[in-house]
Amino acid sequence: MLTKTPHLFDDATRVAAGDSRWSGHTSEDYWAFVGPFGGVTAATMLRAIMEHPQRSGDPLALTVNFCAPIAQGAFDLDVRLIKANRSTQHWSVELTQGGADVATFATAVFAARRPSWSHQPAAFPQAPPFETVRPYPKNSLKMSWVRQYDFRFVEGEPQLGGAPHLEPASAFSKLWIGDSRPRPVDVLSLMSMSDAFFGRIFHVRNEFVPFGTVSLTTYFHADTEDLATEDISHVLAIADAKIFHKSFGDQSGELWSPNGRLLATTTQIAYFKA
Amino acid sequence: MLTKTPHLFDDATRVAAGDSRWSGHTSEDYWAFVGPFGGVTAATMLRAIMEHPQRSGDPLALTVNFCAPIAQGAFDLDVRLIKANRSTQHWSVELTQGGADVATFATAVFAARRPSWSHQPAAFPQAPPFETVRPYPKNSLKMSWVRQYDFRFVEGEPQLGGAPHLEPASAFSKLWIGDSRPRPVDVLSLMSMSDAFFGRIFHVRNEFVPFGTVSLTTYFHADTEDLATEDISHVLAIADAKIFHKSFGDQSGELWSPNGRLLATTTQIAYFKA
Repeated sequence: MLTKTPHLFDDATRVAAGDSRWSGHTSEDYWAFVGPFGGVTAATMLRAIMEHPQRSGDPLALTVNFCAPIAQGAFDLDVRLIKANRSTQHWSVELTQGGADVATFATAVFAARRPSWSHQPAAFPQAPPFETVRPYPKNSLKMSWVRQYDFRFVEGEPQLGGAPHLEPASAFSKLWIGDSRPRPVDVLSLMSMSDAFFGRIFHVRNEFVPFGTVSLTTYFHADTEDLATEDISHVLAIADAKIFHKSFGDQSGELWSPNGRLLATTTQIAYFKA
Repeated sequence: MLTKTPHLFDDATRVAAGDSRWSGHTSEDYWAFVGPFGGVTAATMLRAIMEHPQRSGDPLALTVNFCAPIAQGAFDLDVRLIKANRSTQHWSVELTQGGADVATFATAVFAARRPSWSHQPAAFPQAPPFETVRPYPKNSLKMSWVRQYDFRFVEGEPQLGGAPHLEPASAFSKLWIGDSRPRPVDVLSLMSMSDAFFGRIFHVRNEFVPFGTVSLTTYFHADTEDLATEDISHVLAIADAKIFHKSFGDQSGELWSPNGRLLATTTQIAYFKA
């Protein structure tokens, strides 16, 4: 079912190897309001570490701080191994364009994950199977990145285009997320999908307002081996918000395998103007 | 009620100004298993930014990656303003000792927070007032940092010292947290308190196992002005975990003003051996 020919996502997150200096290029296929979709930027920075010759282990935590807009075109990635222990690595990645100030800054923790006692207190969000849920119609949305994903809302489908809500609606969403052209879920696509929720404020107010993620943190609860075992091409995702105050709001989310395994948790804080 | 003489917490998080190079010293008053309590390390790194002459605005997000143990004694802080926009600043802080590798690495976002539409979907956790809840007895715990806090459990008080649980118990806790010697809650103490939960695995298994936070992210939902308005010396806190797998487990938490305002949210991923 899953093709082996190049996927748009892999084109969009391609990096060219350097020593500490890597390079990449923004993708028109994953464009958002005023710059590249943050999830693909995050996945590209993660890919630079994944493909680094000194990398060992799997991603455990990635924090991305979006410092300034990224312009269409080439960018440089300064990839630095800050500290390596026996089973853990700490990395930083700085994205710059044309020698200007840092536009995006990421820190990552990698780990060789050893077998241990396992326990999953979080409850799998119940949902009808992916195949039975209607895909979210995206033709009305101009952002190209949205078209690269197959969103299937189970709860909290946005009704954007209608009148703004007079009273705040729920910030909670439950949805299936897959690549529009199916692609096996790996750590790179998990990273990207962890930023593939619509801004919570759009759900709550039912209108587009100026919005931008400022800082994003994703934890991986499955390693490469676990993901190979899952062998999936979509995840069940939930997202919610706790507060919007003085121009910033939060979001927290979970990405689940259809088989009931929690793959990643994510949190972000975003700017809004409203 | 609150004293103005130096507080242990302010001693423990004191930094000496440099240009980009700042310095500090570990505190025996806030010691954990094999190094300083991570919350105080995080607060110290935050303080270095707060006191930096180029700092403007209030902390919005702080991520701290604990790369290696910090030894008792002096440390250096390399404080760097990565990018400043009109109303946002991005910082990094590297903690080193004696010119060795980075032991702790932090990134922070600061913002001048402008008035906006406000909405708090998260529900205030109901709890009896701080004054009516029994303080957690800490005499049996050897870690000095625990003695600096007044923990008052409403739910999920650990029964450490008894037999380990045969079946995993709940990872959820609800508790009041204040400084043992009351101190007004500011962004520094909020930062520290966001790491002042006992490891979730101790609650679930009711036993101490080797444990260490690897990465911690805290979002601030109140600025300095908001905190001055609150004028509080303790917070109502909840913490929970979603998964323990292959030697790492997560924690998420909320810190609330007794007046019902959400002040900070936090998430971390921690190593365990079990």
